[in-house]
Amino acid sequence: METTGHFLGTEGWPDGKIFGLLDRAHELKGSPGGNELAGKILAMVFFNPSLRTRASFEAAMLRHGGHAILLEPGRGVWGMETRTGVVMDGDAAEHLVEAAAVIGRYADAVAVRAFPAGEDLEAALADPVIGGFAAHAGVPVINMESARRHPCQGLADAMTIEERLGKRPSGARFVLAWTWHPNPLPTAVPVSAAINAARLGMDVTIAHPPGWELYPGDMEAVRTVAARNGGSVRVSGELDDAVEGADVVYAKSWGRLDLFGDAAAERAARTVHRSWRIDGGRMGRTRQGRGIFLHCLPIRRNVVATDEVLDGPWSVVIDQAENRLHVQRSLLLEVLG
Amino acid sequence: METTGHFLGTEGWPDGKIFGLLDRAHELKGSPGGNELAGKILAMVFFNPSLRTRASFEAAMLRHGGHAILLEPGRGVWGMETRTGVVMDGDAAEHLVEAAAVIGRYADAVAVRAFPAGEDLEAALADPVIGGFAAHAGVPVINMESARRHPCQGLADAMTIEERLGKRPSGARFVLAWTWHPNPLPTAVPVSAAINAARLGMDVTIAHPPGWELYPGDMEAVRTVAARNGGSVRVSGELDDAVEGADVVYAKSWGRLDLFGDAAAERAARTVHRSWRIDGGRMGRTRQGRGIFLHCLPIRRNVVATDEVLDGPWSVVIDQAENRLHVQRSLLLEVLG
Amino acid sequence: METTGHFLGTEGWPDGKIFGLLDRAHELKGSPGGNELAGKILAMVFFNPSLRTRASFEAAMLRHGGHAILLEPGRGVWGMETRTGVVMDGDAAEHLVEAAAVIGRYADAVAVRAFPAGEDLEAALADPVIGGFAAHAGVPVINMESARRHPCQGLADAMTIEERLGKRPSGARFVLAWTWHPNPLPTAVPVSAAINAARLGMDVTIAHPPGWELYPGDMEAVRTVAARNGGSVRVSGELDDAVEGADVVYAKSWGRLDLFGDAAAERAARTVHRSWRIDGGRMGRTRQGRGIFLHCLPIRRNVVATDEVLDGPWSVVIDQAENRLHVQRSLLLEVLG
Repeated sequence: METTGHFLGTEGWPDGKIFGLLDRAHELKGSPGGNELAGKILAMVFFNPSLRTRASFEAAMLRHGGHAILLEPGRGVWGMETRTGVVMDGDAAEHLVEAAAVIGRYADAVAVRAFPAGEDLEAALADPVIGGFAAHAGVPVINMESARRHPCQGLADAMTIEERLGKRPSGARFVLAWTWHPNPLPTAVPVSAAINAARLGMDVTIAHPPGWELYPGDMEAVRTVAARNGGSVRVSGELDDAVEGADVVYAKSWGRLDLFGDAAAERAARTVHRSWRIDGGRMGRTRQGRGIFLHCLPIRRNVVATDEVLDGPWSVVIDQAENRLHVQRSLLLEVLG
Repeated sequence: METTGHFLGTEGWPDGKIFGLLDRAHELKGSPGGNELAGKILAMVFFNPSLRTRASFEAAMLRHGGHAILLEPGRGVWGMETRTGVVMDGDAAEHLVEAAAVIGRYADAVAVRAFPAGEDLEAALADPVIGGFAAHAGVPVINMESARRHPCQGLADAMTIEERLGKRPSGARFVLAWTWHPNPLPTAVPVSAAINAARLGMDVTIAHPPGWELYPGDMEAVRTVAARNGGSVRVSGELDDAVEGADVVYAKSWGRLDLFGDAAAERAARTVHRSWRIDGGRMGRTRQGRGIFLHCLPIRRNVVATDEVLDGPWSVVIDQAENRLHVQRSLLLEVLG
Repeated sequence: METTGHFLGTEGWPDGKIFGLLDRAHELKGSPGGNELAGKILAMVFFNPSLRTRASFEAAMLRHGGHAILLEPGRGVWGMETRTGVVMDGDAAEHLVEAAAVIGRYADAVAVRAFPAGEDLEAALADPVIGGFAAHAGVPVINMESARRHPCQGLADAMTIEERLGKRPSGARFVLAWTWHPNPLPTAVPVSAAINAARLGMDVTIAHPPGWELYPGDMEAVRTVAARNGGSVRVSGELDDAVEGADVVYAKSWGRLDLFGDAAAERAARTVHRSWRIDGGRMGRTRQGRGIFLHCLPIRRNVVATDEVLDGPWSVVIDQAENRLHVQRSLLLEVLG
C-alpha cells in the first residue's frame, strides 16, 4: 500500500523510519517551530468533513513557516470522477487524473481525505482515490484518511501511548474495543491504531461482537507488524474480559463489512450491541484501574463512552488530538523539509 | 459575561482598557502593521455565515504576520452538540467540549461566531456556545457575535463615531433606530452598539415600536455603562421624534423577544411597522441635517435604509466596516502580542 | 471592458503590456519566487466553484510572500444583490455595492469569479458582478472568469502555445473546436482563448455547428486583436476540415446563445452534435499529426475528448493548467508588486 515518497499507510514505511518520526514528534512538542517549510505549500483535498485533521495539518505547516491550501471537491470545487475509461456525461465535471496532476503542479505535497463509498466492499477497499492521487500527483501524497488507513492518526495514537507508558512499551496490553454507534463507520482508524500499537511491541486485543471482523488483509497487516516488533494479536468476543488488566483501551466503532453498503441491515444487526460502550466500570477493570482511554475523536458522548470516562482520569483524548499536530509536524518536515 | 483572558462582551473589560484598545485602533489605521503576531494562529469557528468578520479577522492576523484558520461546523466540519449530559445518538457527531479543547491545542486564540438558536429565549440568551468555548478552549476566546454580544462590532461602532465626532463625544446624541426587516434578527449588534455609545458618554435613545423591547438584562448593561461614563439612556416609541437633532443614527432591526422562536407570529406583528426605515427625510431631521448614519452591514437597501441615505453624505457604513479591521488588529495585539 | 487599474478582459490592456506579462511568466516558471508581495492580501470572491483558479491564485500569492483570503457568497458568506434601486426584501441580505467597497478596505486587490446567470442574455453579458466590483472596490479588480471573459485563462493559453510553438508564433494555425457537452457552458473561455491566439498573430479558426455562433461583440473583439497583430479569423461549420493541418486544437464546449436561459431547448438542439468530440483520428489530421491539444479543464473524458487524446502525445492540458500559476504570478507582481 505504499509507493515511494508517499505516506499512505504506516505499515509501508520501515519501522525505523516510523520510530524516527515519533521521536522527532516528541521533541517538536516542546518547541515552537522555525522556518523550515518557508515557501512550501501543502494542498489539502477533503472529499469528507474534518476538524482535527484540517486544523492540525494547516497549523503544522504554519508552525514551520509553510502554508496549506484547502480544496473540497463538491463543495466550492468541481465533483470528481475516479473510475477509468468512463464516458463522463453524468454529474462529475472533472476526472481525478487531471485534478491530481494539476494540484501537484501548484503544491509541494498533496494531502487527501477520501472515505470509502459505494456498495462494493472490494472496490471501496481498493482505495481508488488516494491511490489515484499517488499515481498522478507527481509530488508526495499524504493520506489524511482513506478507506483503508488513517496513518497520521495511527502515529498520534502511538505517540500518546508513548507519552503515558514510555517509549516502545513492549508487552503492555492494548485493547481495541469496538463500540455501538448509530452509523456504520469506516475501519481505517481502528486498523491504523492496531498496526501502530503492534509496532510498539504491545500485546494487542481486538474486541468486537461476532460479525464485526476486520478485513482479512488488514488483520494480516497488523499481525505482520506485530511479528516484526515482538508484539502479539488476539481477537476477543467479550468486552469485559478484553479490558481486564489493559494498559490502553482504544474505543472505536466500525461498520460490519459483510453488510457494507446496506446501512439498514447493518443497523438492524448492530442494534443488539448497544451495551458495547466504555464506562467507568470497564475502565475500573483495567490495570490497577488506571488504564488510559483513547479515541480518535469526534466521539459521541454516552454512546461510545460515558461522560464519566471522558471527564475522568483515564481519558487522554485531548492530548491524543493535540499529538496529531506534532506527528504531522514531524512528517511534514521529513517529507518537505 | 466575561471570564479572565477572554473577550466575550465589551462591558466585561474595564472602560480604561477599552479606551486603550480604541486609541490604539486609531493609530493602527494609519500604519501598515509589522510582524508582531509572527507564528501566532487564530482559529476562527463560524457556526453562521460571515463576510466582514471573517475577512477582517483574517486580514488583521495577516497584517501583523500571523495567520487565521477557518473552521465551519456543519460545513466541511462535523456538526456539534452543545448540551451537557446528553446521549449523542442523533445528528451531532462531536461535542463542543472536545471541539473547544482540541482547537485550543492547535491555536493561540479561538474566535467564535454562534447566533442564538432554538425556541427557548432564556436558553438561547445563556449563550452556551461561546460560553462553552470560553470554559474549555484553554486559550483566549474572542466573541465574533454570539446570542448576546458582538463586541468587536461595538468597538468599530465607537471608533467610527470618534472619527467623526472626536474622542469621547460626551453628551452627543446617539439614536439606535429599530427598523423593519423581513427576518427576526438577533439583538447582539444593537445591544453592543448601545453599550459602546454609552461608554463614550453619549446620550443614548433606543427607538422601537412597542413590543420590541430589548432583553432587560441587556438594558441594564447599557445603563450601567452609561452611568459609569456620564452617558444617559432613554427609550422612544416614535422614530421621527427620536432622530430629531441626533448626531448619530444607528439603524438596526431585531426580532421581538416575546415571540422568540415563533417566526410566523413575529413576522405578522412586524408587518405594520414597515415605515420604520431610515430615509433622507429622517436624516434631514438630525443635527443641522448632518448627523451620521451607521449600520453594521450587511444592510438591505430600501428596506432598512434608502439608497438616498446609503449613497448620501450621511453614511459612514464603509468606514465603519473598515474599522472592524483596525479594532481587531488592536484587540489581537492585546490578546496575542 | 477595461477600467484603469483593473484586469477584466485581456483585450483592454495594450498588447505590449500583455506580451510583457507573458515574457515575465516564462521567466518566473523557472524561479521559486521571492518576497515581493509580503504584507499584500488578495481577496478571492467566488460566486461559482473552482479548483485551478482558486488553488493557483492562492499559490501565486504565497509563492511571493503574500496571502489570499477566500470568500464564497452564499456558502458561508451572505448572498448578494447585484441590481440597483431594488427593495431588498427577498433572499439577498447584502448588496454588491457594500460588499465590494468593504472587501476593498480589507484587501490590496480583489479577484472575482461570477458566471452568467438569469434568462436574459444581454443582461448576463453586461457582466454586472465584475463590473460592480470594478466600480466600487476602490482597489484593483482581477477577473477570475465572468460572463464575458476569463483573461487569466487566456494568458495561460497563450503561454502554453508559446512554450510549444515559440514566442509570437505568427501564422501558425489555431483551431477553437466546439464540442458536445451535457450542459450549456459560458463563452468566456473560448472567447478569451481566441483573443489571445489572435494576439500571438495566429490564424484562428472557430469551428462550431450552425447556431452556436459566439456573441457578435466578442467576435468583433477577436477580429480587432487579430487585425492589430497580423492574425486572421475565420469560422467553420465542419470539424474534420477545421483541424486539418492545425498546430493547436483548443477544445471547448459552450451553450447556444439564442437559447440562453432555456436549458431544455438548448440540450435538445445540441443532442445531434455528439460527434463533435476530439479523438485520436482528429488529432492525426493536425500538422504532421503532431498538433497540440489544449483545454482549460475541468474536462469530461470521452465526451469533450477521448482518453486517447488526453493520455496521448498531443495533450498539454496539465502544462496549460500549471501555467495559470505562472501568468498569475506575473499579473499579481504587476498589479501589486
